Amino acid sequence: MIKLSIIGSGNVAQHLISAFAKASEIELVQVFSRKADQVSHLVESEKIVSDFSLLIDADLFIIAVSDDAIGTVSGQIPFQNKLVVHTSGSIAISALDEKNRKGVFYPLQTFSKNKAVDFRTIPICLESQNATDFQLLEQVARSISDQLFAVNSEQRKALHVAAVFVNNFSNHLYTIANDICNEHQLPFEILQPLIKETAEKIMVLSPSEAQTGPAKRKDQRTLDAHLEMLTNPMQKKIYTLLTQSIQSHE
Amino acid sequence: MIKLSIIGSGNVAQHLISAFAKASEIELVQVFSRKADQVSHLVESEKIVSDFSLLIDADLFIIAVSDDAIGTVSGQIPFQNKLVVHTSGSIAISALDEKNRKGVFYPLQTFSKNKAVDFRTIPICLESQNATDFQLLEQVARSISDQLFAVNSEQRKALHVAAVFVNNFSNHLYTIANDICNEHQLPFEILQPLIKETAEKIMVLSPSEAQTGPAKRKDQRTLDAHLEMLTNPMQKKIYTLLTQSIQSHE
Repeated sequence: MIKLSIIGSGNVAQHLISAFAKASEIELVQVFSRKADQVSHLVESEKIVSDFSLLIDADLFIIAVSDDAIGTVSGQIPFQNKLVVHTSGSIAISALDEKNRKGVFYPLQTFSKNKAVDFRTIPICLESQNATDFQLLEQVARSISDQLFAVNSEQRKALHVAAVFVNNFSNHLYTIANDICNEHQLPFEILQPLIKETAEKIMVLSPSEAQTGPAKRKDQRTLDAHLEMLTNPMQKKIYTLLTQSIQSHE
Repeated sequence: MIKLSIIGSGNVAQHLISAFAKASEIELVQVFSRKADQVSHLVESEKIVSDFSLLIDADLFIIAVSDDAIGTVSGQIPFQNKLVVHTSGSIAISALDEKNRKGVFYPLQTFSKNKAVDFRTIPICLESQNATDFQLLEQVARSISDQLFAVNSEQRKALHVAAVFVNNFSNHLYTIANDICNEHQLPFEILQPLIKETAEKIMVLSPSEAQTGPAKRKDQRTLDAHLEMLTNPMQKKIYTLLTQSIQSHE
Protein backbone atom coordinates (compact mmCIF):
# COMPACT_ATOMS: atom_id res chain seq x y z
CA MET A 1 0.00 0.00 0.00
CA ILE A 2 1.29 3.42 -0.94
CA LYS A 3 0.35 6.05 1.61
CA LEU A 4 -0.45 9.47 0.23
CA SER A 5 -1.99 12.71 1.41
CA ILE A 6 -3.58 15.44 -0.64
CA ILE A 7 -3.19 19.13 0.11
CA GLY A 8 -6.05 21.14 -1.35
CA SER A 9 -9.81 20.92 -1.82
CA GLY A 10 -10.52 22.48 -5.24
CA ASN A 11 -11.65 20.73 -8.43
CA VAL A 12 -8.44 18.81 -9.06
CA ALA A 13 -8.06 17.80 -5.40
CA GLN A 14 -11.65 16.55 -5.30
CA HIS A 15 -11.32 14.50 -8.48
CA LEU A 16 -8.05 13.00 -7.21
CA ILE A 17 -9.59 12.12 -3.85
CA SER A 18 -12.49 10.32 -5.59
CA ALA A 19 -10.12 8.48 -7.92
CA PHE A 20 -7.70 7.34 -5.18
CA ALA A 21 -10.60 6.24 -2.97
CA LYS A 22 -11.30 3.53 -5.57
CA ALA A 23 -7.63 2.52 -6.00
CA SER A 24 -6.87 -0.59 -3.94
CA GLU A 25 -3.08 0.00 -3.97
CA ILE A 26 -3.45 3.45 -2.40
CA GLU A 27 -4.16 4.46 1.18
CA LEU A 28 -5.38 8.03 1.38
CA VAL A 29 -3.90 9.11 4.71
CA GLN A 30 -5.12 12.69 5.04
CA VAL A 31 -6.59 15.61 3.15
CA PHE A 32 -5.48 19.11 4.08
CA SER A 33 -8.20 21.68 3.53
CA ARG A 34 -8.92 25.08 5.01
CA LYS A 35 -12.54 24.43 4.03
CA ALA A 36 -13.44 21.00 5.44
CA ASP A 37 -16.96 21.13 4.00
CA GLN A 38 -15.60 21.10 0.42
CA VAL A 39 -14.26 17.57 0.87
CA SER A 40 -16.41 16.19 3.72
CA HIS A 41 -18.58 14.29 1.21
CA LEU A 42 -15.49 12.55 -0.19
CA VAL A 43 -13.44 11.56 2.86
CA GLU A 44 -13.99 10.63 6.54
CA SER A 45 -13.92 13.73 8.74
CA GLU A 46 -11.10 12.41 10.98
CA LYS A 47 -8.80 12.39 7.92
CA ILE A 48 -9.40 16.07 7.14
CA VAL A 49 -6.95 18.52 8.71
CA SER A 50 -6.72 22.29 8.40
CA ASP A 51 -3.45 22.85 10.25
CA PHE A 52 -0.13 21.86 8.65
CA SER A 53 1.24 20.71 12.02
CA LEU A 54 -1.40 17.96 12.08
CA LEU A 55 -0.13 16.33 8.88
CA ILE A 56 1.24 12.85 9.57
CA ASP A 57 3.84 10.86 7.68
CA ALA A 58 3.13 9.49 4.17
CA ASP A 59 5.03 8.23 1.10
CA LEU A 60 3.77 11.04 -1.07
CA PHE A 61 2.22 14.48 -0.62
CA ILE A 62 0.21 15.79 -3.58
CA ILE A 63 -0.27 19.55 -3.59
CA ALA A 64 -3.40 20.45 -5.58
CA VAL A 65 -3.78 24.16 -4.90
CA SER A 66 -3.78 27.28 -7.09
CA ASP A 67 -0.54 27.96 -8.98
CA ASP A 68 0.30 31.01 -6.86
CA ALA A 69 0.12 29.05 -3.60
CA ILE A 70 2.29 26.05 -4.58
CA GLY A 71 5.60 27.51 -3.36
CA THR A 72 4.28 28.66 0.02
CA VAL A 73 2.24 25.53 0.69
CA SER A 74 5.18 23.26 -0.13
CA GLY A 75 7.24 25.18 2.44
CA GLN A 76 4.66 24.50 5.15
CA ILE A 77 4.75 20.71 4.97
CA PRO A 78 6.31 19.76 8.33
CA PHE A 79 8.66 17.08 6.97
CA GLN A 80 12.00 16.81 5.18
CA ASN A 81 13.23 14.62 2.38
CA LYS A 82 9.70 13.37 1.58
CA LEU A 83 8.36 13.18 -1.97
CA VAL A 84 6.19 16.26 -2.57
CA VAL A 85 4.56 16.87 -5.97
CA HIS A 86 2.32 19.54 -7.43
CA THR A 87 -0.44 19.06 -10.03
CA SER A 88 -0.02 22.17 -12.15
CA GLY A 89 0.54 22.37 -15.90
CA SER A 90 2.25 25.73 -15.85
CA ILE A 91 4.51 25.67 -12.78
CA ALA A 92 8.07 24.30 -12.96
CA ILE A 93 9.21 21.56 -10.61
CA SER A 94 11.67 24.08 -9.14
CA ALA A 95 8.82 26.09 -7.56
CA LEU A 96 8.55 23.46 -4.82
CA ASP A 97 10.38 24.02 -1.54
CA GLU A 98 13.95 22.66 -1.39
CA LYS A 99 13.56 20.73 1.85
CA ASN A 100 11.70 17.82 0.22
CA ARG A 101 12.19 15.68 -2.92
CA LYS A 102 10.28 17.29 -5.75
CA GLY A 103 7.99 15.99 -8.44
CA VAL A 104 5.03 16.78 -10.65
CA PHE A 105 1.79 14.81 -11.06
CA TYR A 106 -0.18 16.73 -13.71
CA PRO A 107 -3.48 15.26 -14.90
CA LEU A 108 -4.13 16.86 -18.30
CA GLN A 109 -7.87 17.32 -18.29
CA THR A 110 -10.55 19.93 -17.72
CA PHE A 111 -12.31 19.32 -14.42
CA SER A 112 -15.75 20.67 -13.59
CA LYS A 113 -17.47 20.26 -10.27
CA ASN A 114 -20.66 19.01 -11.90
CA LYS A 115 -19.36 16.62 -14.50
CA ALA A 116 -17.81 13.27 -13.67
CA VAL A 117 -14.75 12.20 -15.67
CA ASP A 118 -13.35 8.74 -16.29
CA PHE A 119 -9.92 9.09 -14.71
CA ARG A 120 -8.55 5.97 -16.43
CA THR A 121 -8.51 7.83 -19.77
CA ILE A 122 -6.87 10.98 -18.38
CA PRO A 123 -3.19 11.43 -19.33
CA ILE A 124 -1.03 11.98 -16.25
CA CYS A 125 2.26 13.79 -16.87
CA LEU A 126 4.97 12.79 -14.42
CA GLU A 127 8.27 14.41 -13.50
CA SER A 128 10.71 13.72 -10.67
CA GLN A 129 14.32 14.37 -9.71
CA ASN A 130 15.39 10.72 -9.63
CA ALA A 131 14.41 7.32 -11.00
CA THR A 132 13.19 5.85 -7.70
CA ASP A 133 10.74 8.70 -7.18
CA PHE A 134 9.61 8.37 -10.79
CA GLN A 135 8.81 4.70 -10.21
CA LEU A 136 6.71 5.58 -7.17
CA LEU A 137 4.84 8.26 -9.14
CA GLU A 138 4.26 5.77 -11.94
CA GLN A 139 2.77 3.28 -9.52
CA VAL A 140 0.48 5.92 -8.04
CA ALA A 141 -0.56 7.24 -11.45
CA ARG A 142 -1.18 3.73 -12.79
CA SER A 143 -3.56 3.06 -9.91
CA ILE A 144 -5.99 5.62 -11.36
CA SER A 145 -5.07 6.04 -15.06
CA ASP A 146 -3.93 4.05 -18.09
CA GLN A 147 -2.25 7.04 -19.74
CA LEU A 148 1.14 7.90 -18.22
CA PHE A 149 3.71 10.22 -19.79
CA ALA A 150 7.14 11.41 -18.70
CA VAL A 151 7.07 15.16 -19.29
CA ASN A 152 9.75 17.58 -18.08
CA SER A 153 9.04 21.12 -16.87
CA GLU A 154 9.85 22.79 -20.20
CA GLN A 155 7.69 20.32 -22.13
CA ARG A 156 4.88 20.67 -19.61
CA LYS A 157 4.85 24.43 -20.11
CA ALA A 158 4.49 23.90 -23.87
CA LEU A 159 1.80 21.30 -23.27
CA HIS A 160 -0.11 23.71 -21.08
CA VAL A 161 -0.10 26.32 -23.86
CA ALA A 162 -1.26 23.67 -26.34
CA ALA A 163 -4.01 22.73 -23.88
CA VAL A 164 -5.16 26.36 -23.77
CA PHE A 165 -5.55 26.27 -27.57
CA VAL A 166 -7.57 23.04 -27.67
CA ASN A 167 -9.58 23.60 -24.51
CA ASN A 168 -10.03 27.29 -23.55
CA PHE A 169 -9.84 28.67 -27.09
CA SER A 170 -11.96 25.96 -28.74
CA ASN A 171 -14.54 26.46 -26.01
CA HIS A 172 -14.54 30.18 -26.75
CA LEU A 173 -15.22 29.42 -30.43
CA TYR A 174 -18.21 27.36 -29.22
CA THR A 175 -19.32 30.44 -27.26
CA ILE A 176 -19.14 32.59 -30.39
CA ALA A 177 -21.12 30.00 -32.34
CA ASN A 178 -23.68 29.96 -29.53
CA ASP A 179 -23.95 33.77 -29.76
CA ILE A 180 -24.48 33.57 -33.53
CA CYS A 181 -27.20 30.95 -33.00
CA ASN A 182 -28.97 33.10 -30.40
CA GLU A 183 -28.83 36.10 -32.67
CA HIS A 184 -30.59 34.16 -35.43
CA GLN A 185 -33.12 32.23 -33.29
CA LEU A 186 -31.35 28.93 -33.87
CA PRO A 187 -30.98 26.30 -31.12
CA PHE A 188 -27.31 25.69 -30.21
CA GLU A 189 -28.11 21.94 -30.06
CA ILE A 190 -28.08 21.94 -33.85
CA LEU A 191 -24.26 22.37 -33.72
CA GLN A 192 -23.50 19.79 -31.04
CA PRO A 193 -23.12 16.74 -33.32
CA LEU A 194 -20.70 18.74 -35.50
CA ILE A 195 -18.67 19.79 -32.44
CA LYS A 196 -18.49 16.19 -31.27
CA GLU A 197 -17.52 14.84 -34.69
CA THR A 198 -14.85 17.54 -35.13
CA ALA A 199 -13.22 16.44 -31.86
CA GLU A 200 -13.52 12.73 -32.68
CA LYS A 201 -12.21 13.06 -36.22
CA ILE A 202 -8.69 13.87 -35.04
CA MET A 203 -8.50 10.51 -33.24
CA VAL A 204 -8.29 8.91 -36.71
CA LEU A 205 -6.94 11.71 -38.92
CA SER A 206 -4.22 14.23 -38.10
CA PRO A 207 -5.69 17.74 -37.57
CA SER A 208 -4.11 19.04 -40.77
CA GLU A 209 -5.56 16.11 -42.74
CA ALA A 210 -8.94 16.83 -41.15
CA GLN A 211 -8.93 20.51 -42.13
CA THR A 212 -11.79 21.48 -44.46
CA GLY A 213 -13.84 24.61 -45.11
CA PRO A 214 -13.81 27.80 -47.16
CA ALA A 215 -10.45 29.04 -45.78
CA LYS A 216 -8.71 25.78 -46.65
CA ARG A 217 -10.12 25.60 -50.17
CA LYS A 218 -9.58 29.36 -50.67
CA ASP A 219 -13.26 29.90 -51.46
CA GLN A 220 -13.13 33.70 -51.45
CA ARG A 221 -16.80 34.17 -52.27
CA THR A 222 -17.93 32.26 -49.15
CA LEU A 223 -15.28 33.95 -47.00
CA ASP A 224 -16.55 37.38 -48.12
CA ALA A 225 -20.18 36.39 -47.54
CA HIS A 226 -19.35 35.19 -44.01
CA LEU A 227 -17.49 38.36 -43.11
CA GLU A 228 -20.36 40.41 -44.42
CA MET A 229 -22.82 38.44 -42.30
CA LEU A 230 -20.86 38.89 -39.07
CA THR A 231 -21.80 42.15 -37.35
CA ASN A 232 -19.70 41.79 -34.18
CA PRO A 233 -16.24 43.40 -34.76
CA MET A 234 -14.42 40.89 -32.53
CA GLN A 235 -16.03 37.96 -34.37
CA LYS A 236 -14.91 39.52 -37.67
CA LYS A 237 -11.33 39.88 -36.40
CA ILE A 238 -11.20 36.28 -35.23
CA TYR A 239 -12.71 35.04 -38.50
CA THR A 240 -10.12 36.99 -40.50
CA LEU A 241 -7.11 35.95 -38.41
CA LEU A 242 -7.97 32.24 -38.25
CA THR A 243 -8.68 32.24 -41.99
CA GLN A 244 -5.23 33.79 -42.60
CA SER A 245 -3.61 31.27 -40.30
CA ILE A 246 -5.27 28.30 -42.05
CA GLN A 247 -4.22 29.67 -45.44
CA SER A 248 -0.61 30.32 -44.43
CA HIS A 249 -0.21 26.97 -42.64
CA GLU A 250 2.01 24.46 -44.45
CA MET B 1 -42.27 4.66 -51.18
CA ILE B 2 -40.77 8.01 -51.95
CA LYS B 3 -38.76 8.01 -55.17
CA LEU B 4 -35.67 10.17 -55.18
CA SER B 5 -32.58 10.71 -57.30
CA ILE B 6 -29.27 12.19 -56.28
CA ILE B 7 -27.23 14.47 -58.52
CA GLY B 8 -23.55 14.38 -57.54
CA SER B 9 -20.89 11.96 -56.39
CA GLY B 10 -18.78 13.83 -53.82
CA ASN B 11 -18.58 13.28 -50.06
CA VAL B 12 -22.10 14.46 -49.24
CA ALA B 13 -23.64 12.60 -52.17
CA GLN B 14 -21.87 9.38 -51.19
CA HIS B 15 -22.97 9.60 -47.55
CA LEU B 16 -26.56 10.33 -48.63
CA ILE B 17 -26.58 7.39 -51.06
CA SER B 18 -25.39 5.04 -48.29
CA ALA B 19 -27.94 6.40 -45.83
CA PHE B 20 -30.92 6.19 -48.24
CA ALA B 21 -29.91 2.68 -49.30
CA LYS B 22 -30.78 1.58 -45.75
CA ALA B 23 -34.06 3.55 -45.56
CA SER B 24 -37.03 1.29 -46.30
CA GLU B 25 -39.38 4.19 -47.13
CA ILE B 26 -37.08 5.47 -49.87
CA GLU B 27 -36.48 4.19 -53.38
CA LEU B 28 -33.23 5.52 -54.81
CA VAL B 29 -34.15 5.84 -58.48
CA GLN B 30 -30.93 7.15 -60.03
CA VAL B 31 -27.60 8.76 -59.25
CA PHE B 32 -26.25 11.32 -61.70
CA SER B 33 -22.47 11.34 -61.79
CA ARG B 34 -19.91 12.39 -64.38
CA LYS B 35 -17.54 9.96 -62.65
CA ALA B 36 -19.41 6.66 -62.37
CA ASP B 37 -16.53 4.96 -60.56
CA GLN B 38 -16.93 7.29 -57.53
CA VAL B 39 -20.32 5.78 -56.73
CA SER B 40 -20.15 2.34 -58.37
CA HIS B 41 -19.43 0.72 -54.99
CA LEU B 42 -22.61 2.23 -53.55
CA VAL B 43 -25.27 1.77 -56.23
CA GLU B 44 -26.10 -0.66 -59.07
CA SER B 45 -24.46 0.45 -62.32
CA GLU B 46 -27.75 0.61 -64.27
CA LYS B 47 -28.93 3.35 -61.90
CA ILE B 48 -25.92 5.56 -62.59
CA VAL B 49 -26.35 8.10 -65.38
CA SER B 50 -23.95 10.74 -66.65
CA ASP B 51 -26.25 12.52 -69.08
CA PHE B 52 -29.06 14.75 -67.80
CA SER B 53 -31.38 13.61 -70.59
CA LEU B 54 -31.30 10.09 -69.11
CA LEU B 55 -32.78 11.19 -65.78
CA ILE B 56 -36.21 9.65 -65.22
CA ASP B 57 -39.10 10.90 -63.13
CA ALA B 58 -38.90 10.99 -59.32
CA ASP B 59 -40.63 12.71 -56.36
CA LEU B 60 -37.47 14.50 -55.33
CA PHE B 61 -34.12 15.44 -56.87
CA ILE B 62 -31.31 16.11 -54.41
CA ILE B 63 -28.45 18.17 -55.83
CA ALA B 64 -25.25 17.45 -53.86
CA VAL B 65 -22.61 19.24 -55.92
CA SER B 66 -20.17 22.08 -55.21
CA ASP B 67 -21.76 25.44 -54.31
CA ASP B 68 -20.70 27.05 -57.59
CA ALA B 69 -22.39 24.38 -59.70
CA ILE B 70 -25.81 24.33 -57.96
CA GLY B 71 -27.45 26.94 -60.20
CA THR B 72 -26.28 25.43 -63.50
CA VAL B 73 -26.99 21.84 -62.50
CA SER B 74 -30.52 22.71 -61.33
CA GLY B 75 -31.16 24.25 -64.75
CA GLN B 76 -30.20 21.01 -66.50
CA ILE B 77 -32.75 18.77 -64.84
CA PRO B 78 -35.07 17.86 -67.75
CA PHE B 79 -38.34 18.31 -65.82
CA GLN B 80 -40.63 21.07 -64.67
CA ASN B 81 -42.54 21.65 -61.44
CA LYS B 82 -40.67 18.85 -59.64
CA LEU B 83 -39.23 19.26 -56.15
CA VAL B 84 -35.49 19.99 -56.47
CA VAL B 85 -33.34 20.67 -53.40
CA HIS B 86 -29.70 21.44 -52.79
CA THR B 87 -27.58 20.35 -49.79
CA SER B 88 -25.46 23.43 -49.20
CA GLY B 89 -25.13 25.46 -46.01
CA SER B 90 -24.12 28.67 -47.70
CA ILE B 91 -26.31 28.90 -50.81
CA ALA B 92 -29.78 30.47 -50.68
CA ILE B 93 -32.84 28.56 -51.87
CA SER B 94 -33.18 31.18 -54.62
CA ALA B 95 -30.05 29.93 -56.40
CA LEU B 96 -32.04 26.98 -57.74
CA ASP B 97 -33.56 27.22 -61.23
CA GLU B 98 -37.09 28.66 -61.40
CA LYS B 99 -38.61 25.90 -63.51
CA ASN B 100 -38.92 23.50 -60.55
CA ARG B 101 -40.18 23.75 -56.93
CA LYS B 102 -37.26 24.65 -54.72
CA GLY B 103 -36.02 23.39 -51.39
CA VAL B 104 -32.97 22.80 -49.21
CA PHE B 105 -31.86 19.58 -47.52
CA TYR B 106 -28.71 20.55 -45.60
CA PRO B 107 -27.09 17.91 -43.37
CA LEU B 108 -25.00 19.83 -40.84
CA GLN B 109 -21.98 17.62 -40.41
CA THR B 110 -18.40 17.26 -41.53
CA PHE B 111 -18.06 14.38 -43.96
CA SER B 112 -14.81 12.57 -44.68
CA LYS B 113 -14.37 9.86 -47.24
CA ASN B 114 -12.61 7.58 -44.77
CA LYS B 115 -14.72 7.99 -41.67
CA ALA B 116 -18.23 6.60 -41.30
CA VAL B 117 -20.84 8.76 -39.58
CA ASP B 118 -24.06 7.78 -37.86
CA PHE B 119 -26.57 9.64 -40.01
CA ARG B 120 -29.38 9.30 -37.41
CA THR B 121 -27.60 11.85 -35.17
CA ILE B 122 -26.92 14.37 -37.94
CA PRO B 123 -29.13 17.47 -37.89
CA ILE B 124 -30.83 18.02 -41.23
CA CYS B 125 -31.92 21.59 -41.97
CA LEU B 126 -34.95 21.80 -44.22
CA GLU B 127 -36.43 24.63 -46.24
CA SER B 128 -39.14 24.69 -48.90
CA GLN B 129 -41.49 27.10 -50.65
CA ASN B 130 -44.71 25.49 -49.41
CA ALA B 131 -46.03 23.27 -46.63
CA THR B 132 -46.66 20.20 -48.81
CA ASP B 133 -43.08 20.14 -50.03
CA PHE B 134 -41.89 20.64 -46.47
CA GLN B 135 -43.85 17.55 -45.39
CA LEU B 136 -42.23 15.49 -48.13
CA LEU B 137 -38.75 16.73 -47.12
CA GLU B 138 -39.53 15.92 -43.48
CA GLN B 139 -40.52 12.38 -44.42
CA VAL B 140 -37.35 11.91 -46.44
CA ALA B 141 -35.13 13.41 -43.73
CA ARG B 142 -36.80 11.35 -41.00
CA SER B 143 -36.00 8.17 -42.93
CA ILE B 144 -32.29 8.75 -42.26
CA SER B 145 -32.06 11.12 -39.24
CA ASP B 146 -33.74 11.86 -35.90
CA GLN B 147 -32.68 15.53 -35.91
CA LEU B 148 -34.82 17.70 -38.19
CA PHE B 149 -34.87 21.50 -38.13
CA ALA B 150 -36.76 24.11 -40.17
CA VAL B 151 -34.11 26.65 -41.12
CA ASN B 152 -34.64 29.46 -43.63
CA SER B 153 -31.96 30.72 -46.02
CA GLU B 154 -30.90 33.65 -43.83
CA GLN B 155 -30.64 31.43 -40.74
CA ARG B 156 -28.78 28.76 -42.68
CA LYS B 157 -26.18 31.32 -43.74
CA ALA B 158 -25.63 32.25 -40.07
CA LEU B 159 -25.52 28.59 -39.12
CA HIS B 160 -22.88 27.94 -41.74
CA VAL B 161 -20.69 30.70 -40.29
CA ALA B 162 -21.20 29.27 -36.79
CA ALA B 163 -20.24 25.85 -38.17
CA VAL B 164 -17.00 27.32 -39.54
CA PHE B 165 -16.15 28.53 -36.02
CA VAL B 166 -16.82 25.19 -34.28
CA ASN B 167 -15.51 22.93 -37.03
CA ASN B 168 -12.89 24.56 -39.30
CA PHE B 169 -11.52 26.97 -36.70
CA SER B 170 -11.51 24.52 -33.77
CA ASN B 171 -9.75 22.02 -36.01
CA HIS B 172 -7.15 24.65 -36.84
CA LEU B 173 -6.56 25.20 -33.10
CA TYR B 174 -5.96 21.43 -32.87
CA THR B 175 -3.42 21.82 -35.69
CA ILE B 176 -1.59 24.56 -33.78
CA ALA B 177 -1.55 22.39 -30.65
CA ASN B 178 -0.19 19.54 -32.76
CA ASP B 179 2.57 21.84 -34.04
CA ILE B 180 3.46 22.87 -30.46
CA CYS B 181 3.60 19.20 -29.43
CA ASN B 182 5.87 18.33 -32.36
CA GLU B 183 8.17 21.23 -31.55
CA HIS B 184 8.59 19.93 -27.99
CA GLN B 185 8.79 16.18 -28.74
CA LEU B 186 5.41 15.50 -27.18
CA PRO B 187 2.93 13.01 -28.65
CA PHE B 188 -0.30 14.69 -29.83
CA GLU B 189 -2.24 11.76 -28.31
CA ILE B 190 -1.64 13.31 -24.92
CA LEU B 191 -4.14 16.07 -25.84
CA GLN B 192 -6.86 13.88 -27.33
CA PRO B 193 -8.81 13.16 -24.11
CA LEU B 194 -8.86 16.90 -23.36
CA ILE B 195 -10.13 17.67 -26.86
CA LYS B 196 -12.87 15.06 -26.50
CA GLU B 197 -13.91 16.25 -23.03
CA THR B 198 -13.96 19.90 -24.16
CA ALA B 199 -16.41 18.98 -26.93
CA GLU B 200 -18.54 16.80 -24.66
CA LYS B 201 -18.70 19.29 -21.81
CA ILE B 202 -20.91 21.67 -23.78
CA MET B 203 -23.58 18.97 -24.09
CA VAL B 204 -24.25 19.51 -20.36
CA LEU B 205 -22.99 23.06 -19.71
CA SER B 206 -23.40 26.12 -21.92
CA PRO B 207 -20.09 27.12 -23.55
CA SER B 208 -19.85 30.27 -21.46
CA GLU B 209 -20.41 28.26 -18.26
CA ALA B 210 -17.75 25.81 -19.42
CA GLN B 211 -15.14 28.53 -20.03
CA THR B 212 -12.04 28.16 -17.85
CA GLY B 213 -8.36 29.04 -18.16
CA PRO B 214 -5.89 31.88 -17.62
CA ALA B 215 -7.74 34.33 -19.92
CA LYS B 216 -11.05 33.80 -18.13
CA ARG B 217 -9.56 34.18 -14.64
CA LYS B 218 -7.36 37.09 -15.78
CA ASP B 219 -4.19 35.29 -14.68
CA GLN B 220 -1.76 37.73 -16.26
CA ARG B 221 1.36 35.90 -15.09
CA THR B 222 0.39 32.71 -16.94
CA LEU B 223 -0.76 34.68 -20.01
CA ASP B 224 2.64 36.42 -20.17
CA ALA B 225 4.53 33.15 -19.69
CA HIS B 226 2.52 31.53 -22.50
CA LEU B 227 3.15 34.40 -24.92
CA GLU B 228 6.82 34.29 -24.10
CA MET B 229 6.94 30.57 -24.79
CA LEU B 230 5.29 30.87 -28.21
CA THR B 231 7.85 31.60 -30.92
CA ASN B 232 5.57 31.50 -33.97
CA PRO B 233 4.22 35.04 -34.69
CA MET B 234 0.86 33.77 -35.98
CA GLN B 235 0.39 31.61 -32.87
CA LYS B 236 1.14 34.66 -30.71
CA LYS B 237 -1.41 36.78 -32.59
CA ILE B 238 -4.10 34.12 -32.22
CA TYR B 239 -3.30 33.66 -28.52
CA THR B 240 -3.55 37.41 -27.94
CA LEU B 241 -6.77 37.93 -29.90
CA LEU B 242 -8.65 34.97 -28.41
CA THR B 243 -7.54 35.99 -24.90
CA GLN B 244 -8.89 39.51 -25.56
CA SER B 245 -12.13 38.08 -26.89
CA ILE B 246 -12.62 35.83 -23.84
CA GLN B 247 -11.93 38.74 -21.51
CA SER B 248 -14.26 41.16 -23.28
CA HIS B 249 -17.09 38.61 -23.60
CA GLU B 250 -20.06 39.22 -21.31
